[in-house]
Amino acid sequence: MARLTAIGCGPGDPDLITIKAKKAIDAARTILCPASREDRPSIALSIARPLIDPARGQRVVKLVFPMTRDPAVLEETWDRNAEEMAREVEAAGSAVYLTVGDPYLYSTWMYLHARLARDHPEIEIDVVPGIVSAFMFASRAGMSLAEGAEKLTIVPSCYDLTQVRELARSSDTMVFLKDGQYFGQVIELLREAGYAPDSPLAIGQDLGTERERVTKTTLGEVDADTSQMRYFSILMVRRARNG
Amino acid sequence: MARLTAIGCGPGDPDLITIKAKKAIDAARTILCPASREDRPSIALSIARPLIDPARGQRVVKLVFPMTRDPAVLEETWDRNAEEMAREVEAAGSAVYLTVGDPYLYSTWMYLHARLARDHPEIEIDVVPGIVSAFMFASRAGMSLAEGAEKLTIVPSCYDLTQVRELARSSDTMVFLKDGQYFGQVIELLREAGYAPDSPLAIGQDLGTERERVTKTTLGEVDADTSQMRYFSILMVRRARNG
Repeated sequence: MARLTAIGCGPGDPDLITIKAKKAIDAARTILCPASREDRPSIALSIARPLIDPARGQRVVKLVFPMTRDPAVLEETWDRNAEEMAREVEAAGSAVYLTVGDPYLYSTWMYLHARLARDHPEIEIDVVPGIVSAFMFASRAGMSLAEGAEKLTIVPSCYDLTQVRELARSSDTMVFLKDGQYFGQVIELLREAGYAPDSPLAIGQDLGTERERVTKTTLGEVDADTSQMRYFSILMVRRARNG
Repeated sequence: MARLTAIGCGPGDPDLITIKAKKAIDAARTILCPASREDRPSIALSIARPLIDPARGQRVVKLVFPMTRDPAVLEETWDRNAEEMAREVEAAGSAVYLTVGDPYLYSTWMYLHARLARDHPEIEIDVVPGIVSAFMFASRAGMSLAEGAEKLTIVPSCYDLTQVRELARSSDTMVFLKDGQYFGQVIELLREAGYAPDSPLAIGQDLGTERERVTKTTLGEVDADTSQMRYFSILMVRRARNG
């Protein structure tokens, strides 16, 4: 039976890949990875590269997922890539698919998985979870994501601010993933939602790269100049005990 | 300079430990781990055990954290264990502290970290993130935690149901961590919060053990007999697109 293993490669440091993922990469005959264009590098592949032994001569196949929100283009992309994956997995007998972070959090893997399960039940599928950026960021900032009975909410970009406002009122920790240009509005919203000025707040930019910057401050002290924020940013705030 | 590395050992499978954590364990002269009583095994240690080479003769020290919510006992426990950690780290020059899951999500590590940073600035501290149970569970159930612009909320036990209700209204995915005896109320609440009957729902019990059970269903179909739920349970629900 042909076997496909989807692998969460974590947020960037190859050493944050799990032992299980390393074993699956070693065992695979083909390595599949996503890229936004044929001539662009795959970020997931670049994370896993130090773990791939070139002496094994594994076949590396880039699947192209263009950056778009057009539903018709997305559907076509997922269909096409799921079919290409199925062909590669069946030809090789065993393959891995590399994704950034975790395969089930804001990843294209789930669309591929749904199609493969529906159209190619002959392929056995395993998934290896990966570390996501929010956890790596918490360890960098030395700040808890949640303690005791606290509730944690993760908000991606493309904010519906009405919903975010309601979530902020009832959550104890909020993590906002890219993109940084919204952070000015988010900070205002958190203040309105009753987070006290001494609520710890951390902002990270370009994590895992040479330009990485982690700023620890409070909601009261955070600089309003968030227009300088880069796209790959993360903001984490914890409700102060007295807040 | 003495160095302490806090390590997230993940949800149970030793292979879900990261390569970075494995390297830190190998390099440490002392291995510290939490246990609820002196005569009880440390769960974190039992996860990492297959990675520990007995030939290295590393010193293993159990720190006792009694199961209590008494604030005075907790404070005393954290103070005492932080001091014991500091003594061990300084004696050994390098040590690791093993925790289940991730050190910054519902872990005692943060209380220790705060005390060490305040009272022992001479100790260099690193933190290695770990896979948390919600991500392992998503991979087992083959269910996304969040896609696109969806918001994810994680709720631990000891529910304040008023806040949970407000969170449920604005979140797209909810993950409820132990304990299972509350799940009946949670299911009712999700229905009231407007999650449609066809919202995918999964329940896991005793994950990573021989008794592991994963049930995939929908909010409309889920069996009301949740009183059978064990303490170490997890419930995940995703808002149906038409919900």
